[in-house]
Amino acid sequence: MNFPLLRLHLEVASKNIKLMAKKAKDSNVEFRPHFKTHQSRMIGELFKAEGVKAITVSSVEMADFFIDDGWNDITIAFPVDIRKMERLNELSSKAKIHIITDQLESLSILDKRSDHQIGVYLELDPGYGRSGVDYSRRDTISKFIEKVNKAKNLDLSGFYMHAGYTYQCKSKEEIEERILPVLSELKDIKQIYNIPICFGDTPSCSVLDDFGVVDQISPGNFVFYDWMQFKIGSCTKEDIAVSMECPVTAIYPDRNELVIHGGAIHFSKDYIFDESGNKVFGVLYAVNGVKVSGERNYLKALSQEHGILKADKDLISQIRIGDIVSIYPIHSCLTANLMGKYIDDSDNYYDHFSRSYLK
Amino acid sequence: MNFPLLRLHLEVASKNIKLMAKKAKDSNVEFRPHFKTHQSRMIGELFKAEGVKAITVSSVEMADFFIDDGWNDITIAFPVDIRKMERLNELSSKAKIHIITDQLESLSILDKRSDHQIGVYLELDPGYGRSGVDYSRRDTISKFIEKVNKAKNLDLSGFYMHAGYTYQCKSKEEIEERILPVLSELKDIKQIYNIPICFGDTPSCSVLDDFGVVDQISPGNFVFYDWMQFKIGSCTKEDIAVSMECPVTAIYPDRNELVIHGGAIHFSKDYIFDESGNKVFGVLYAVNGVKVSGERNYLKALSQEHGILKADKDLISQIRIGDIVSIYPIHSCLTANLMGKYIDDSDNYYDHFSRSYLK
Repeated sequence: MNFPLLRLHLEVASKNIKLMAKKAKDSNVEFRPHFKTHQSRMIGELFKAEGVKAITVSSVEMADFFIDDGWNDITIAFPVDIRKMERLNELSSKAKIHIITDQLESLSILDKRSDHQIGVYLELDPGYGRSGVDYSRRDTISKFIEKVNKAKNLDLSGFYMHAGYTYQCKSKEEIEERILPVLSELKDIKQIYNIPICFGDTPSCSVLDDFGVVDQISPGNFVFYDWMQFKIGSCTKEDIAVSMECPVTAIYPDRNELVIHGGAIHFSKDYIFDESGNKVFGVLYAVNGVKVSGERNYLKALSQEHGILKADKDLISQIRIGDIVSIYPIHSCLTANLMGKYIDDSDNYYDHFSRSYLK
Repeated sequence: MNFPLLRLHLEVASKNIKLMAKKAKDSNVEFRPHFKTHQSRMIGELFKAEGVKAITVSSVEMADFFIDDGWNDITIAFPVDIRKMERLNELSSKAKIHIITDQLESLSILDKRSDHQIGVYLELDPGYGRSGVDYSRRDTISKFIEKVNKAKNLDLSGFYMHAGYTYQCKSKEEIEERILPVLSELKDIKQIYNIPICFGDTPSCSVLDDFGVVDQISPGNFVFYDWMQFKIGSCTKEDIAVSMECPVTAIYPDRNELVIHGGAIHFSKDYIFDESGNKVFGVLYAVNGVKVSGERNYLKALSQEHGILKADKDLISQIRIGDIVSIYPIHSCLTANLMGKYIDDSDNYYDHFSRSYLK
């Protein structure tokens, strides 16, 4: 094996997918999973097996990648880039494409230059402040809907929203506390406009059992989860379906530190703070396949290729040069994008968009 | 053009290379540039034109990539991974390979399993605390050198060191203040061991005119520089040779913010703090090719594909959907690795290891 590598624990990912698919079915919402986390056609097959028919992606190119694999109902969940009209026209000749936007100017250009019917989700902002119309501004919402309804080449797919602030939560209870008022506001919105509502950050979708008036969910990260999601309260450690495997290349017993081959170009620079205020770029959970308990062994710093692992004195004394440490990534989406492929527990290869799509 | 893209300002990169090559020549030190920043065979040609014969890389695979392009004297400047012996043997049959380490165990394994002579740099740590032997520990240094000298398949290339703390500096003066005591300590070390010393973080190499007893320099970032290096005091804004070009996909005049297509998978999550304590993930310098002055327009947040650009009210009012913003990256090494290719100002393509090497 060529280390560092990104290990895919397939049975965990399968279980995560099955559970979310079941929850969607039980809650009577359409499951339109976001594929931006795994970005893999091979993992996409696991969703097909659960009866998933429609997916969500984060770029025009990623839509193309999955259309080539037979997916034919795709939301490109990023404020539409009107410079990509040619590509959008090409894609919408092959599949039902939905875009999202909240920009009236984008709508005009889209309508003028579309060769095929394109579905439009109006992005609503539930107070996150990234993109979308503030969902309390009914006048703006109405104006937008009116414009889509008048457009020749556009049809209204519904509302799309991402309550990204659940990523700041620290428990299941806190997630519910943040998201229940949103569901309540959506009830009003549904009453007025009566169009589908698509909703779906991983923390909310993992924690909620009742999605209220929501019609569709599109979580993505849940397929793998990661250390951040565990700390948010979305999952248990056992639900994390990917881990980095990195060789130990230097040992510093005086500092209680190891250098591993695994840096910013493998993990990404995303981090969280632990309870003591230390930056944590990843958490050790096994050495040469043998589990290590606790959270005290963690990546304290990353440079381009180096990872600095802070570890217990006892553990350090048992580790040898060339040992393989298994580490939970902080943010699996970014780690998977950087690694560009997966190796499962039986050493089978799984593709990832970022390495296999070179159009 | 397919945006976001990484623009290479070739004449600026060429000038940076020429200047550093000239400085090395004038200072009578060997220039062994680090290729981990650009990772491009095509940019490698600019170094060949300056008479550069030996290079530095950060992984075995990257060494392979450049050997295939005719480079035959390469330092792999990462604590040697003894799991890659097979690959190392293959490479050292084709080129002179130097590795770095400070681990006695790695030396033993290396000596035992090498098919060809491998050069060994002992990594010294000038108080940075990442890897290397603390350079004040003469006993450990002597023991290591003795071991290399006794080894059958190893020869001593010299000392290698990276004074990474210069990345924390905020001015030319501060860099000098940090690095002059290091040069003074190296004078003593040189007197005792009298073997080559290779040295070379970009801030020091950019600022120093006299490298003292140092024999070789191996800076990497200087080829492009970036916003971080400008803030450190290593370069001017005009010396930055790469920029991200991203389309505007949403405009929020109420918030003085834009959403651009350009996120963590394009820029990386590296940031610096500005004078007011804001996180800065990139700094705007042009809109549709027209320069914008000042530093007040900056990327305040990145998610996977989204960038949130905070900008002056006046500027926002002039920007339209689909406009292209040019942004200085914070850390060009990580941005280049993620983007995987360059487009120069005449729209020519330049390769990057991370996309073109798929062995």
